[in-house]
Amino acid sequence: MPAALHGVFPYLVSPVDDDGRVMRPVLARLVEHLIDAGIHGLTPLGSTGEFAYLTREQKLAVVETVVEVARGRVPVIAGVADTTVAGAVSLAREVMARGADGVMATLEAYFPVSDAGIEDYFTRIAAEVAGPVVLYTNPSFQRADLSLPLIRRLSRVPNIRYIKDASTNTGRLLSILGETEGRMQVFAASSHIPACVMLIGGVGWMAGPACLVPRQSVALYDRARAGDWPGAMALQRALWPVNQAFARYGLAACVKAGLDLQGFPVGAPIPPQAPLDGAGIEDLRGILARVGGLGDG
Amino acid sequence: MPAALHGVFPYLVSPVDDDGRVMRPVLARLVEHLIDAGIHGLTPLGSTGEFAYLTREQKLAVVETVVEVARGRVPVIAGVADTTVAGAVSLAREVMARGADGVMATLEAYFPVSDAGIEDYFTRIAAEVAGPVVLYTNPSFQRADLSLPLIRRLSRVPNIRYIKDASTNTGRLLSILGETEGRMQVFAASSHIPACVMLIGGVGWMAGPACLVPRQSVALYDRARAGDWPGAMALQRALWPVNQAFARYGLAACVKAGLDLQGFPVGAPIPPQAPLDGAGIEDLRGILARVGGLGDG
Amino acid sequence: MPAALHGVFPYLVSPVDDDGRVMRPVLARLVEHLIDAGIHGLTPLGSTGEFAYLTREQKLAVVETVVEVARGRVPVIAGVADTTVAGAVSLAREVMARGADGVMATLEAYFPVSDAGIEDYFTRIAAEVAGPVVLYTNPSFQRADLSLPLIRRLSRVPNIRYIKDASTNTGRLLSILGETEGRMQVFAASSHIPACVMLIGGVGWMAGPACLVPRQSVALYDRARAGDWPGAMALQRALWPVNQAFARYGLAACVKAGLDLQGFPVGAPIPPQAPLDGAGIEDLRGILARVGGLGDG
Amino acid sequence: MPAALHGVFPYLVSPVDDDGRVMRPVLARLVEHLIDAGIHGLTPLGSTGEFAYLTREQKLAVVETVVEVARGRVPVIAGVADTTVAGAVSLAREVMARGADGVMATLEAYFPVSDAGIEDYFTRIAAEVAGPVVLYTNPSFQRADLSLPLIRRLSRVPNIRYIKDASTNTGRLLSILGETEGRMQVFAASSHIPACVMLIGGVGWMAGPACLVPRQSVALYDRARAGDWPGAMALQRALWPVNQAFARYGLAACVKAGLDLQGFPVGAPIPPQAPLDGAGIEDLRGILARVGGLGDG
Repeated sequence: MPAALHGVFPYLVSPVDDDGRVMRPVLARLVEHLIDAGIHGLTPLGSTGEFAYLTREQKLAVVETVVEVARGRVPVIAGVADTTVAGAVSLAREVMARGADGVMATLEAYFPVSDAGIEDYFTRIAAEVAGPVVLYTNPSFQRADLSLPLIRRLSRVPNIRYIKDASTNTGRLLSILGETEGRMQVFAASSHIPACVMLIGGVGWMAGPACLVPRQSVALYDRARAGDWPGAMALQRALWPVNQAFARYGLAACVKAGLDLQGFPVGAPIPPQAPLDGAGIEDLRGILARVGGLGDG
Repeated sequence: MPAALHGVFPYLVSPVDDDGRVMRPVLARLVEHLIDAGIHGLTPLGSTGEFAYLTREQKLAVVETVVEVARGRVPVIAGVADTTVAGAVSLAREVMARGADGVMATLEAYFPVSDAGIEDYFTRIAAEVAGPVVLYTNPSFQRADLSLPLIRRLSRVPNIRYIKDASTNTGRLLSILGETEGRMQVFAASSHIPACVMLIGGVGWMAGPACLVPRQSVALYDRARAGDWPGAMALQRALWPVNQAFARYGLAACVKAGLDLQGFPVGAPIPPQAPLDGAGIEDLRGILARVGGLGDG
Repeated sequence: MPAALHGVFPYLVSPVDDDGRVMRPVLARLVEHLIDAGIHGLTPLGSTGEFAYLTREQKLAVVETVVEVARGRVPVIAGVADTTVAGAVSLAREVMARGADGVMATLEAYFPVSDAGIEDYFTRIAAEVAGPVVLYTNPSFQRADLSLPLIRRLSRVPNIRYIKDASTNTGRLLSILGETEGRMQVFAASSHIPACVMLIGGVGWMAGPACLVPRQSVALYDRARAGDWPGAMALQRALWPVNQAFARYGLAACVKAGLDLQGFPVGAPIPPQAPLDGAGIEDLRGILARVGGLGDG
Repeated sequence: MPAALHGVFPYLVSPVDDDGRVMRPVLARLVEHLIDAGIHGLTPLGSTGEFAYLTREQKLAVVETVVEVARGRVPVIAGVADTTVAGAVSLAREVMARGADGVMATLEAYFPVSDAGIEDYFTRIAAEVAGPVVLYTNPSFQRADLSLPLIRRLSRVPNIRYIKDASTNTGRLLSILGETEGRMQVFAASSHIPACVMLIGGVGWMAGPACLVPRQSVALYDRARAGDWPGAMALQRALWPVNQAFARYGLAACVKAGLDLQGFPVGAPIPPQAPLDGAGIEDLRGILARVGGLGDG
């Protein structure tokens, strides 16, 4: 098991061509670029990575590529999401077999699921994984949300040690930290203000914007870790428009358009999702330019 | 292309054992039983059939079994649902290659999709299918709903000829019939009152309850078609508690428990979904007994 | 207490001038016109009547006017809505003192209310009223919905004898009829198809569209009561676009614009609500013309 | 107009007896107690103050009492909420006439309201008030939310200088600060973490918990203002369970039960709202005891 996870974990895109093939070279180049920028870990197959639009084969190709390029320099925490226990457990096994260091586990749901069912789902994934498990909740896109009592119970599973909450409710993160009494650490999502989550005791963030502004994100993280809160907020204020763009344009469309502007031709979101239109691209170009996200990536 | 679709189309369960294998014999026996009861068509891979919980292989095994047993006696309209155009188109191709007579198409969504994206999704499926396409919308479980203007546009695609709306909004069905001026026919779901949908011009229903009370459903359909509305309502009033049970207990848990009570051991819903508990089974047993749904199935 | 309520109850508008005075003459003329058209009862202070935008004084002026003009020819069932028990009870007392024959009771809520609180609210109103009480639920606009078990309990209060459900869920009406075993009768709202609600056993409808097409509504009601379902549906199909207009444009804006087109200058919705714009007025004019709702009202 | 608003503004309860009379003595004693504790301003008629459950007369009695006791020592910002422009404008005039220093304005809505209508509503209130206007949005309880472009336009009205956002979305506050470029200041609500809102540039909080823990709230505010973020977070962590209790038990029930425990018999929430039950009271007693909220108030 890796040392404790912390820091900036950019959500990786999943570049897929028109024939459904993962475009490994551009993904490899992106991973190298992010590691050069000082990020602390990599999270393929998050929401931003369009996990809900990929086949099993595409998912494994993405993880393989990321693990190969990372070569152990930073931990790779791969997304595992399914509607069934069996599907999630087998996917967890497969990403770990390909060298992932841990998983970020999501429950997809079509029908409502009882708390007992949700607990079983995550516990059985954790049993399959020789590494840390990050719970991932996103009430905007998923139908099953994790209640505080359920999070408290899951925090007693030894390797369920982190949670990434993609609600916009920052108070909920503080409640989680209080409820789990040190057994669970919190990562921010792009819908939270990273500086605030660090202030309340978070250990970092897993988010799409860090894919577009990795150096700036690491600088913000460093100031927060150093307790330089005015300095952190100065950077935070400048960077927040990138998060606003992700909310306005959608995660996958925004990250793919932004990477393309930065010289990483990762293609369009998988249809029927639409790519950013011309006005959106110009808006995003301006936002990135203002934070130094075009010249030096 | 088959003659115009009409009548009672029971949603089929997907019986899967603990190792993930489709239990073909019990499914075959159920199909034979339903055809004997006089139903007018079969719809594998609906919501009730847990399409959101099955692998591609399981889905195809279900369709193969149903087509083989049906032997052309009634049309088989197979569910096709995916988040991507590519996945849906390839699944449509595969179910048609296995002998389905048409498809019931659903858009699953994780991120919001534009109307243009939704239109493209259904149009590309229709282009792949030499048979009728039934649009399926279910705002309770899906994230993308079909607007009336979009339904009107889709009704101009030649083989998109039916819609099954699983909202509870019966007025919406009348609006759809008005908007599409005869180009689109309407099937009820278990959340609508079948007698009402027949009164406003519907051509039948596709629903899980018909899997448990097929003879009674056909009798209700026959009275409605004959214009015997008092007679239809007398049957409808008696049968409505079955629909209420589906709403109360969830589609898959309810249909699987009911079939088990009727001598079709189709197993439990796929985990982490929970089966009906003891009290629920007894409630359902009473409801089925009161409508003659146990003695003679 | 009046004989059993049944038939077409148009929701009345509340015409208020720029200084906040109820315009009694035009309201009186409208009431006379509706009674001439054969409607079976009058319901001032419904949603369509903008109850949520009126002061206590305005409400009582509306009820006084309607009662005076009706002169007992048809029952007047006045809307009573409040967030507090005390406010609702005193309003019920005041409208009954002004000659209303019964009340239509609505719970407004800001914070969530327990089922016990809801039950108490309606029971205490009923105790104040020497006449029938119609429960009114509208999940689109209100925060407290009535569960089936709660409706069953309330149906045991002697004078709570009717429910008007303004959800779009027609199946819920059939469930209510089943649950209350004859103790409670059902009225449709404009979001339901009146012909369907009559088919399942409803006793009529309370709705804004009947204010614009009273004769046509009564004709539809008469056919349904006579068991002429094909005839009822022929009228229903023609009239449904009026209900669609109410849904599209909002209840108050639509009814006020339509009455103005018919020669009843009832003014605009109360600000900050907006009146129908020019395109909306032309759309509504066409819809009304097609059902004979302009020439002969 | 008072100097710039900032600091801790406890939401005041509205103590009303069984006959509907405002209990002025206990309210007066509470106001004195809060001023003694060092709070920076007073906000009668917020959500916590049950504005949605009070008559006009009760509202004015509350404001009169608070103004009289405050005697200008701290600013009094009175809540003004209505569904109509006319009602809100006249209430604003009346609370200012009774000595309020400014208003906190809320739009209540039954039907949806256009952005133009919302803008008109707040602008007309502001024109009536010779003092600062605080916009108040609470998407949990209200039907009309304020979009960012609308907030930007409203920030150009000279005396609309503050916003209190009671969503749980702290990122939205940072977006508002960015959009309004210094023209609008932000207050936190009990659903936000005050220390975080101070970090991003907020000027204080208006919230019910400060009514129960005023000294502790002021201490937290002072540390944040001094830039002692570790010290602020230490207090924040201890105080957060009070905010969690408000979310769990409801604002009015929680604040009234807590004040009763502290020796301020302010009565129960207005029916049909329910008071806290015995288990809730014990839970709250423990939470308050742990933060020194019982011994010394």
